[in-house]
This record gives sequence, C-alpha cells and structure tokens, in this order.
Amino acid sequence: MSQPKDQVVNKTAHPFERPSLESLLIRRFFFAPAFEIYGGVKGLYDYGPPGSSLQANILDTWRKHFIIEEEMLELDTTIMTLSDVLKTSGHVDKFTDWMVRDVKTNEVYRADHLIEGVLEARLKGDKEARGVQAVQEEEDATAKKKKKKVKSVAVQLDDAVVAEYEAVLAKIDNYTGAQLGELIREHKILAPDTGNEVTEPVEFNLMFDSSIGPTGQIKGYLRPETAQGHFVNFNRLLDFNNGRVPFASAQIGKSFRNEISPRSGLLRVREFTMAEIEHFVDPLDKSHERFSLVKDIKLRLLPKDVQSAGRTDISELTIGEAVSSGMVDNETLGYFLARIFLFLTKIGINPARLRFRQHMSNEMAHYAADCWDAEIETSYGWIECVGCADRSAYDLTVHSVKTQNKLVVRQPLKEPRVVEKIVAQLDKKAFGPMFKRDAKAIEEAILALSDECLKKAMAELQEKQAATIEANGQTFEVPVSVLQIQPQQIKEMVREFVPNVIEPSFGIGRILYSLLEHSYWARADDVNRGVLSLPPVVAPIKCLIVPLSNNTEFKPLVARVSHQLRSLGVASRVDDSNASIGKRYARNDELGTPYGVTLDFASVKNNTMTIRERDTTLQLIGSIDDVIQLVAQLCRGDLSWAEAQQKLPAYSGEQEA
Amino acid sequence: MSQPKDQVVNKTAHPFERPSLESLLIRRFFFAPAFEIYGGVKGLYDYGPPGSSLQANILDTWRKHFIIEEEMLELDTTIMTLSDVLKTSGHVDKFTDWMVRDVKTNEVYRADHLIEGVLEARLKGDKEARGVQAVQEEEDATAKKKKKKVKSVAVQLDDAVVAEYEAVLAKIDNYTGAQLGELIREHKILAPDTGNEVTEPVEFNLMFDSSIGPTGQIKGYLRPETAQGHFVNFNRLLDFNNGRVPFASAQIGKSFRNEISPRSGLLRVREFTMAEIEHFVDPLDKSHERFSLVKDIKLRLLPKDVQSAGRTDISELTIGEAVSSGMVDNETLGYFLARIFLFLTKIGINPARLRFRQHMSNEMAHYAADCWDAEIETSYGWIECVGCADRSAYDLTVHSVKTQNKLVVRQPLKEPRVVEKIVAQLDKKAFGPMFKRDAKAIEEAILALSDECLKKAMAELQEKQAATIEANGQTFEVPVSVLQIQPQQIKEMVREFVPNVIEPSFGIGRILYSLLEHSYWARADDVNRGVLSLPPVVAPIKCLIVPLSNNTEFKPLVARVSHQLRSLGVASRVDDSNASIGKRYARNDELGTPYGVTLDFASVKNNTMTIRERDTTLQLIGSIDDVIQLVAQLCRGDLSWAEAQQKLPAYSGEQEA
Repeated sequence: MSQPKDQVVNKTAHPFERPSLESLLIRRFFFAPAFEIYGGVKGLYDYGPPGSSLQANILDTWRKHFIIEEEMLELDTTIMTLSDVLKTSGHVDKFTDWMVRDVKTNEVYRADHLIEGVLEARLKGDKEARGVQAVQEEEDATAKKKKKKVKSVAVQLDDAVVAEYEAVLAKIDNYTGAQLGELIREHKILAPDTGNEVTEPVEFNLMFDSSIGPTGQIKGYLRPETAQGHFVNFNRLLDFNNGRVPFASAQIGKSFRNEISPRSGLLRVREFTMAEIEHFVDPLDKSHERFSLVKDIKLRLLPKDVQSAGRTDISELTIGEAVSSGMVDNETLGYFLARIFLFLTKIGINPARLRFRQHMSNEMAHYAADCWDAEIETSYGWIECVGCADRSAYDLTVHSVKTQNKLVVRQPLKEPRVVEKIVAQLDKKAFGPMFKRDAKAIEEAILALSDECLKKAMAELQEKQAATIEANGQTFEVPVSVLQIQPQQIKEMVREFVPNVIEPSFGIGRILYSLLEHSYWARADDVNRGVLSLPPVVAPIKCLIVPLSNNTEFKPLVARVSHQLRSLGVASRVDDSNASIGKRYARNDELGTPYGVTLDFASVKNNTMTIRERDTTLQLIGSIDDVIQLVAQLCRGDLSWAEAQQKLPAYSGEQEA
Repeated sequence: MSQPKDQVVNKTAHPFERPSLESLLIRRFFFAPAFEIYGGVKGLYDYGPPGSSLQANILDTWRKHFIIEEEMLELDTTIMTLSDVLKTSGHVDKFTDWMVRDVKTNEVYRADHLIEGVLEARLKGDKEARGVQAVQEEEDATAKKKKKKVKSVAVQLDDAVVAEYEAVLAKIDNYTGAQLGELIREHKILAPDTGNEVTEPVEFNLMFDSSIGPTGQIKGYLRPETAQGHFVNFNRLLDFNNGRVPFASAQIGKSFRNEISPRSGLLRVREFTMAEIEHFVDPLDKSHERFSLVKDIKLRLLPKDVQSAGRTDISELTIGEAVSSGMVDNETLGYFLARIFLFLTKIGINPARLRFRQHMSNEMAHYAADCWDAEIETSYGWIECVGCADRSAYDLTVHSVKTQNKLVVRQPLKEPRVVEKIVAQLDKKAFGPMFKRDAKAIEEAILALSDECLKKAMAELQEKQAATIEANGQTFEVPVSVLQIQPQQIKEMVREFVPNVIEPSFGIGRILYSLLEHSYWARADDVNRGVLSLPPVVAPIKCLIVPLSNNTEFKPLVARVSHQLRSLGVASRVDDSNASIGKRYARNDELGTPYGVTLDFASVKNNTMTIRERDTTLQLIGSIDDVIQLVAQLCRGDLSWAEAQQKLPAYSGEQEA
C-alpha cells in the first residue's frame, strides 16, 4: 500500500511518433492491408479483432446515442445502386477528381495533391535556404495531410513567387481541371518520383462501377454515401412515422470511393463505414424540441467569416449563443452539432483537439443553407470526420422531379386557405418539337424551379418574352409562346411541402483512427511501452483475466471469474500464455484494455483477486466477488477509478516487475 | 377480471397465405424493393425500420451467442476483393450458373430452373389429366421453391415419360452445361412466356466485377462470401491467438451474387448479409472442449444414406449419438450443429420445421470431410439457411501455395522426432525450358500435392519414368529427369501443420424471412388482423407506449415511462397518433411488438398503467412502476407471461374494442 493514491500519469513524456503508433496497430492487428499475402492493394484495409471490436463498440455507442435516444428510424439499404439514382443525385456527373499521369511511366496523381505537394516542398526549401529555423511542426503536419511527401531542396525563391505559391495553396480545393493544368504548366510541376512531365488533367469518377444482372444492360455503382438510400425511401419512412415531421432516418453501412491514389492510412480509403442521419424537418420551423437540453454546451467554433479573413482562431461559444447570434443557421443544426460533440467526447476524442469549422460559401453546394464539419486534430492535420449540413429541399426535389413521384409532407389545415402560387404551364404540343431531344430535360428543369426562380422566370417572360432555363449543361431561351408562368389563386385544404434535410454524416474509420491517435502514449520510463487509453465504453476488451500460470489449479477460478464477468456484460479475455504477468499486461496496454485482474495462489487460498488500472498501473486487492462487482461498475461508468480506490485497499505486489 | 387466465391462442385458424404476409411486410416497411420509385431492380431489397431492427437484433443475438460466448476473434475485411484471391479460391473459374436466352426476346433464364419449372408443370398437368385430386400442398411448395412459375396444362404423359422427368428433377442440381443443353433439346423445352426456343447454355459468373484504382489494371470482385477474408489473414489471427489452435474467427458483413434471374423475394437476392465462422482446428484432434455441454441436445437429422435411398425421413438423435455413431464426422462439427440449433430456436425458428441435411457425396466439394445444412421449412419448401462444413485444409493450402506464404501452426515438440517425409525436388534449370509458360503452374501444382498424391506420383516416376500432373486445366507428363520424389529422414523439433477449417456460414436474410413466416398468423376472428409472434429478444420494438390521446395531460407521463423503459434497456416507441387504441395495437401486432402499455386518465389519477400481451391480447393492471419492472423482466426473458399473470391482476377494460 505504498503507492500514492493520487499518482499522476505523465502521458506526454515522449513526443507523439506516428510510426510507433502505426507499428503497434499493425502488430496488434487493429488493422492490416487487405490481401497482404497477395501484395495488398492501396486504400483497402482489413480490421482485425481489436479493430473490429473497437469499431463495433463505436457503432454501438453511436446507435444508442443517436438511433435509440432520438428514436430515429433505422434503415439498411443496398450498396449496389442503380445508376439512374446517382445520375439524379449528381454523382455520375460531378463526383470526380482531376487526375494526371506521368507521361513516361503512366503513374497517376491526383492533380491538386500533386501541385500542393510540389509547391509546399518548394516553400519549405525556400525557408531552409533563407535559414529559417526548423519549420514548425504544425505546418509540417498540414503539409503531410493530403499528398505524397515531396522532398524539399534548399532553393531560395523570389518574394513574389512565395506569395503566389501561398495564394495558390489557399485556393487549391477550388480550381477547375483546366486551371489545374495551367498551374502545372506555369509552375513547371513534374512527377516527383521521376522528374517527367505529366499529362493534362482528366476527370476521373470516384465511383466503382459494375453491372447488375447477366445482360450487362443495367448499370450500377457501389454507393459513395448511404444518403440516397434514405431519400428514395422517403415516402415509406414518412408513412411509417404516421405522416409527421420532424423525424430522422439513420443508417450505418459501407460506402466506396475509388480514390485515384490513396495514402494517409485509414484516413483516405476506398471502402469505409459511414453512419448517416437524414433529419427531415418543416422548412418553416427548424426549431428543435430538445434544444434546451444542449443549449449550454460550449463548442469550439471556426465560423466562415473568420476563415475569409485568413484566420483560424476559435470562438468558444455555447451552442445557444451560436444559434441566437445567427452564426449557426438554426436550432436543429445546432442541436446536432452539440450531440456530435457529446458523442465524440464520450468515445474518447480529446475536446481540445476537436473543432467545428463552417463551410465557406464557395465550398458549400449551392442549395445548402449552412454546413459545419467536426474536425479532429491528428498528426495529419485537422481532419474532417463528421459533416453536418442543412441540405434544404434539394435531394427530395431532384428525385421527385426525375421520377415524377411526389416526395412531400401533407398537413391538414384547420381552415382552408387561399394562396397565390406561381405556376408554370407548358404548351407541350409546341414545346416538344421546338426543343427536340432537349425537351424532356428542359421540362424537368422548369418543374424543379423553386418559387424564387419561378418569380425570376416570370419577370423574364414579361421583359424579353423568353425565360432562360439551364438544362443538360446548356442554356436555353424558352419563349412565351410555349411557356406561361403566372400567379394563380389556389384554395388549399392541406398544406403540402417538401421537407428540408439536415444531414449529419460520420466517417467512422476517420473517427476511429483519430481516437487511436488521441489515446496513444508511451510510458515515461520506456518509450517502447505504448499504451492506448481508450475509455471502457469503446475498449475492445474491458477486462483481462491473468492467471499466474497455465497451471490447472487456476482453471476453475478462471472459468468462474470469466463467467461472472460475462454475465455482468463485461467483455473479458483470458491470457494464460507462458509470458510473464508484466508482459501480458504490457500487451494489453497496447490493446487499450482498461482493467486486468490477476489470479494467483492467494486467490486459491484466500479467495482474493487484484485489479490493475491500465493508465496508472496501480493495483487494488479484494475478495473475488468484490473485485468483479468493482470491474462491472467501472466499465459501466458508474464508478471512477478514484472512487474505486476508496473502496478497496491498494496492492503493491511484485507482479508488474 | 373475467378473462380466463389460461386462454389458449388459436394461431392456426387460417391457413398460411404468403401474399397476406408479403403485403404486411411491405406495408409495414420490413422491406421494400430497392429504388422502388425508379422502378426497382430484381434481387435488391432495402430494409426499413422494423426490418433493420429485426436484422440488427438477430445479429446482436448471433454476436453474443457465437462471438462473445465462444470468445471468437471478430474480423471486418473488405467487400472489394482482389481478383487473384478469388482466382485461388476457385470462384473466378467455378462460381457460375448456366444461362440460356430466349432466341427472339433475349430474356435470360437460369437453365436448371427453366428445365425444372417446365418439367414440373408438365407433371402437374399430367396429374390433372389423370384426375388426381388437388396436388398436395407440400409438392406445390417445393415446386415454387426456385423458379418462375410455369402454368400447367392438363395433358396426360406416358408412364415412362413421367418416370424420366422425375429422374431428371431428382438430379437437376448435378448436370453440366452440355447436359442441360441436351435436356432442353430432348424434352423440347421452350421459354415459358413466349414459347420461343432458347439458346445453348452458357456459363455466367455470379460475381459482380469492377476495377480498383484509375488505371483499370487491378481487377476486383465484390466478395461472394466473407470466408476468404479470414483465410488470407490467417497468420495474423494465429499470432493474435498466441500461436495456438483451436480458435475461431467470425465476421458479419455484406456479400454479393449477381443472380441470373432472382425471384423468391428475400430468399434469392443479389446483396445479402452473411455471418461466417472459420474454426481452425488440429486435423489430428477434432474433439471440442465444450462438447459435453451440448451432447444431449436432440436434432432432426437427414443423413446422406437416407437421401441416397430416395427417402427424406428424419432421424431424431442427440448430437452425442450422431457423433459417436459416425453419422456426424467429428465433435467440433457436431458442437456447431447443436449451437446452430440453439441459436435458431432462440430467435424464434420453429424446431419442428428445422432439420439438418447432410450433403450427399456428389454435392460436396472433393476436399470437404463432411457438410450439413440447417434447412428451415417455409412456403417455398425446405430452404438452406446455414451451411456447416468441414473444409479440411483446402483453403489455407491453396492460398499458401499460390502466395508462397506458409499458413501453418507450429507446435514445439517435447522431444525432437525423426520423420520420414516424401519430398519433391525439381531441377529448375531443365524444368523451365521444358514446360515454358506452363512451368509455373505445374510447379505450383506439384508443391500443392498432398502426401497421398506425392506417394502416387513417386510410384509413377518409378514405373514409367514420369509423373502425371494436372495444371492449367491440362495434363502434363513430368519426366524423372527434372522431377525427383523421394522419402527423406527429417529431424523435427517442431510439429508444423495446416489446420483444418470447420465453417458454419449463416445467410441472415434467409433466416430472417423464414422467421417471419414462422411467426406470422391471423387472429381467428379476423383474417385481416395479422400478428407476428416474434420473441422479445429479436422483436424490433419491445414495448409500445400508448397514451389514450395526444392530450398534453399525458405528455409528462409518456416521457417518464419512455425514459424509464429506455434506462432499463427496453426499446420502446410511443404511438400518440389519432387512431383508436385498438388500431394502434393492431398496427403493432403486425410489427411483432410483444408488449404494450396504455396511459389513460386512471394513470394520471391513480398512477396505474395496463400492460397488454400481443398474442393473447390479455391485459394486466398495476402501478406504473410495477408494470415497468414487469415489462423489463418479460423482455429480458426473466419472467414468462404466465408468471406475470400471477403477479398482477387482469384488466378487462374497453380499450381493445
């Protein structure tokens, strides 16, 4: 009982080294490259037992936190998706990256990543040449974020060139393919491995394609997100919810992106687990019933105006303040930001390394009302792990227009009302021949016009006898002879509206990896003794059972303890290998196992057992039954380790040595 | 309190009607055709809220029953699979069905299903013509099992033709493509919709293919099973298990089969959830540590010798008897059959409609030691829902040979031993030029030879100075000048062996659908009042909370009951819609919700609440707290409804009316 009860664990004795963590994760089979014995394929990883359990526990916590607590409607829709659906959603046309090839070796690069890598390397070389002291770590981290590392050479650049490079890098996400090609020529960017020139950028669609059925005539894609599965089922979901909004559907499942050249380990992969929520809400009322429960939660926010000013300083505000000031668009969006914060910190994300970054206007889809990303800081920089967007009525509208199925909510009005609606009418007989094969697309575009756009088109028709309509990527002038747009008096008994969608979308693999970085440290006395301080709620194994040896004397006790822990819902595992107790504990520190219990000769004789806490390595001793109860309470979160130390005496045996 | 406490529910008042069940399942959104608003695609279904929850609960029960209780190592490997892996496993070459086309319309048919459908229709027409009374239902069910329904016409056949058709149907799974083509010509089988001729059968591979990365050079398939993900990770799994066998890995995930012409609803789909176990075991010791715990469980077994005799009578044996008599090959296989039985009956499969059918020798892969399918009886006939095979050392051997990575267990021997091993040695310098581009494949085939085959090859070399080797689908004579096969004395310190694999493989969608059929019935007094008698452990919602009305008076009570049930782990849902209480209960009978609690004015005044049991519709009344405790105990399975009736008085209110 000699150890001090308030021993503070020094988790920062050694600077974070990503290779040490990665080596631990592969060695302990959290994950490994898929088909490793076949040489592997970039961007595909398998999760081994601890990784699968960690993922299952994160998903289980997610399901309880969101689906159960919020009474969401769970869905499980297909991965294989009809191409028409993804054509409507815009993925077939726009879910692309720009790609270049080494003209001689044919190696492919993502154009923006290539430019970024080369310019950053030149800027780094410039700093070295100017004798600037070791480039700050933070910048290094950002530089590593996305692209293949390019070696820097100490060459000084003109001040103007430095400024130009920095301007390019600030906007690197926003260039068109042609612009990227121009940048490559202008700045003489070559393939970093070979020094060869690269081709003009070409568009590459990031969806895996396949065909459904034996005829090859039904084209399908592996879904790039689960969201479309919610939207196409909207009417059935609404019906299941007795016709009322708001409600949310939720889905956990695999999605796919055929990345051009994936790197960054688990952060940029070709197959990944997502958890997505589509919360359908009345566009006229985006308040949230339970907002008052979260309004005082403080978030670290990085709003768009701060970013526009080129700064990254954080506003620490309660979500109540952020919504009432208008920084966050509405209560429902704010409610989800707070719930996302609670979820991420519950599973062990460090709140000081979590921020919510608002999308800038040019990042956001044109239809989105507001969008915030939960970003987590890792050694790769700030990583987008959860997107939370108000997508307005966009998705339901486009699917409705395309399929001619109404996707609306109908609310009976207490009293009928007369409303003025702007209505578009086509003279189809004349319209078809006038626009021939574009007619259908133009008609669909007209039907999809929002009230706002209809008003504009009506004004145009009055002014210049034609309305400008965009369809099939072209612009058409539709004359008043075939198109009338007029206000009409309509008597309504029912209010009919397309609900808006607020979409929190979680990248589970990215969250899992970030959590591993936040949990990892090495013991002060030995840099090789890594520890993952995962909270019990997500730890793959909650309790390790360690008999002193493989001796048969211990077997009945081990079976009893194992059975009792299991019946209390504590996932435990026995390690009766020949390794020393210290080694067995060290192995489980690497697996993030929060508690361990040891059975030795005293257990057989006196019916006692010791319990060891992972981070402090402190041990307590008590009767076997008391220790089992304690472990269960600790794992359920009903008891803290400090409280546990009040309940049982400390033990200072020789086991750890 | 007038209702008799022992009221027996008559669940068989109405004969089972599949269309009624299907209409319920679609209406309540257990599932629906995927992309329905886009016209749908055959063989792809989305699960809605009750279907997803039912599936999640089945999987959760599976995870506890197998992964947690048996301490299996969970895996989550990729769906997108490198083609090389599936080439080695045999799927690229052999995972095919035979397909024919209507020569005019190009509609496709699975050849065996087409023949089966036409011949069965002719046999049915023959019976009608012979005036045989209504063909028995059972036969009807079998006939509907697999193929598109073909209309029968009452035409009498010769006795010899009847016998011939029956012989063809008995062997329909075992014909080659050429044989199927011959049958089509011989029996003049035409496309049933058009009466047109059909083409010769061509092979169609059932895997969805795609390519990985932007170059198009890495071919990939969507996995047709999860098993290969276990095998390629064997060394990491073994290492995680401290180098010891037996151990099992387990994986739950989506798999894909691009069926030629899928029908039969959820039973034959193109995307489905599987749960697979690979249990790795010492080939010399297939005993199971916990076999004694299950040995007295009685199973309904249909062994292969009974089937060979053309019979289908069941042997009801304990699994202990089945293993000791040699009917089931070994204890480990027997242990899993019993565990599969316990799992299926726990989730609600009717044990009287569950049998274990042994594979006949010609059904089984050449390497398999024994194989049993758990088959569940449905309106489609007996459906294979779980396969349980002893795959010997096949899978690890082929991947090992292909990749030149050893996939073996090493056990230190207490004393070194000298063993005689037959070893093949190639004279590579002469061998390469002799067989040119086939050399590699021949070498691999030689390395893959089992001890038995090596012995044979050695004898061949002695007799005729050459060994016959099959590779690349051809036969080669490898002369003694380049190949020596000889016994050698080898001193071993370590026993090295390829473990055998016992593979229980669950089709979750098939189990789920069969469970729905076994659970469905209609109330005696109204055929339109369907009920799903799902056990609480898998029911999508365990308890419905029904306030008398949407009145604000009830809101605090509803919130309190809802919160308390949730904190006791009972998934509940509030229905405060305007429908009558009876209607709301009827809706939840269709969802399989086992219990409902009603809050009315008495609840507000006296703090009482009633609880209703789904199958009997009996109600009990008690204090709100008592009823909540009762519901929790009932849902956990700690209490039966009969016991609950002893605890609280019956209630005979007017609500249900």
